[in-house]
Amino acid sequence: MKQGNDSRNDNPATIALGQAARQVEQRLLKLLPRAVDLEQRVIDAMEYSLMAGGKRIRPFLVMETAAIFGVGADSALMVAAAVECAHTYSLIHDDLPCMDDDDMRRGQPTVHKKFDEATAVLAGDGLLTLAFEILSDERSHMDARVRCELISFMARALGVNGMVGGQMFDLLAENQTLDKIRITRFQRMKTWALIIFSGEAGAILGKAEVRRRHAIKGYAHDIGLAFQIIDDLLDQEGVSAKIGKTTGKDAAAGKATLISLVGADQARTKAEMLINQALQHLEVFGDKAENLRNLAKFIINRAY
Amino acid sequence: MKQGNDSRNDNPATIALGQAARQVEQRLLKLLPRAVDLEQRVIDAMEYSLMAGGKRIRPFLVMETAAIFGVGADSALMVAAAVECAHTYSLIHDDLPCMDDDDMRRGQPTVHKKFDEATAVLAGDGLLTLAFEILSDERSHMDARVRCELISFMARALGVNGMVGGQMFDLLAENQTLDKIRITRFQRMKTWALIIFSGEAGAILGKAEVRRRHAIKGYAHDIGLAFQIIDDLLDQEGVSAKIGKTTGKDAAAGKATLISLVGADQARTKAEMLINQALQHLEVFGDKAENLRNLAKFIINRAY
Repeated sequence: MKQGNDSRNDNPATIALGQAARQVEQRLLKLLPRAVDLEQRVIDAMEYSLMAGGKRIRPFLVMETAAIFGVGADSALMVAAAVECAHTYSLIHDDLPCMDDDDMRRGQPTVHKKFDEATAVLAGDGLLTLAFEILSDERSHMDARVRCELISFMARALGVNGMVGGQMFDLLAENQTLDKIRITRFQRMKTWALIIFSGEAGAILGKAEVRRRHAIKGYAHDIGLAFQIIDDLLDQEGVSAKIGKTTGKDAAAGKATLISLVGADQARTKAEMLINQALQHLEVFGDKAENLRNLAKFIINRAY
Repeated sequence: MKQGNDSRNDNPATIALGQAARQVEQRLLKLLPRAVDLEQRVIDAMEYSLMAGGKRIRPFLVMETAAIFGVGADSALMVAAAVECAHTYSLIHDDLPCMDDDDMRRGQPTVHKKFDEATAVLAGDGLLTLAFEILSDERSHMDARVRCELISFMARALGVNGMVGGQMFDLLAENQTLDKIRITRFQRMKTWALIIFSGEAGAILGKAEVRRRHAIKGYAHDIGLAFQIIDDLLDQEGVSAKIGKTTGKDAAAGKATLISLVGADQARTKAEMLINQALQHLEVFGDKAENLRNLAKFIINRAY
């Protein structure tokens, strides 16, 4: 199983991430539909992309926040699998030639290179659909109101005021001059929206009180933004081995990031500030949030 | 407002279809999200494709079956809008250059011609996501269990054992020799699955008893298949004015249809048999099913 290309495999965060990743991968394999004829190809493409590794931060967030709110592991695992399906769909479509045109991801050919473009479009469509099917399943939560709340929030995170809109913005923003507010807004739509949902999902599953739900949402928001800043930093510094994909692409494409606006040092300081803020959000949860604390520290340590 | 290119605008079926179409179009415009920045482009593409006309048979089925089971019009209209979003998403993605590569649909440029490929992929993704968001909305039904049932059934109709799998099969099946069973199976996945769901949706909304739910499902199944056969007949006969898109494409692409297998006459007889069967399914509903009866007759009359 892959853990990205990060070499720090012995710290508590990567151990916990690895355990969660194994669980969610097993569940994803069980949830993949079966085919009896030619359409097996699209399922193969879905499986290929789902099993291509990655740190599985989103499912980890679902499972850890669910545990904090006393949610059963099976329930959490279903929602974690749904989130990973949604995330993987977005990667497949973003990699398409008409979008970011990426040939490699996590050191392997992207879906449209390994299969073909039509299969890649359909595999993404199939995963997005499967994500909603999983959330509507009683195994995600016995209370249908909770399932509907999950579906509603995930749809908003993925839709035109979330991920789809963020990707549209990103494509159109090349070579535009953007201020900090616009950059932050579109990155929130494109990337954090699903990360925030992943954190909030545990609170929804556990019917958490508003104050605790907000704390978890704040934590997810802060680590999501910090993660993005550090990814951009690594991209700019060309540490391709660390992030497992082609580097320097954003600058080459004239894409505005926070770093191009304020410089690497200020961006790093901002990321540190966000991680400290994320840790403060966790105080109310005491020892139960230890894995989430380690994740926050792991994210900031990637920058050094 | 467009009604396809069919000239029979004075019969009861087309009048009822037209009324339903106007209602669902108004609702769709209300349900489209708003944007504040560059991402407006993807919303424009979604609106363009949603408003490009068509007979709106699927939303009509939702609204008519919902009425039979005593469901409120507002509830039905939400679900009808969701189904039309899902149908429109499938048209946009199917038209892409890497798929069926169609430049025109209903006499207008397809989304990737009018906008561009990336916007078309994202508009489809946005519409699919919006479809699920609408179904999770309380306005679709006050009972969350009903909303989850709708979401679950729609996801299955759209997923790899439904529309996505059917499209994958269709792309791979070119120049293959297919028997009747395989043709019927993949057309069921690609086209009827969503039509059957559209009929069943009214029964789910109305918590219909099993026998009546099966009757409606049988009706939707039969008119769905008849509709497909007649569409293929018109395609083969090159009556492009009637169906509003490039004709003869299936034969040119070496695609197997029921007609290429059994000939036009037998296919027409089969369609007639299906329509009679569909009418029998409606008997249990008496006068309430008058509009559905007219729709069945309208479908078979297109063939002459």
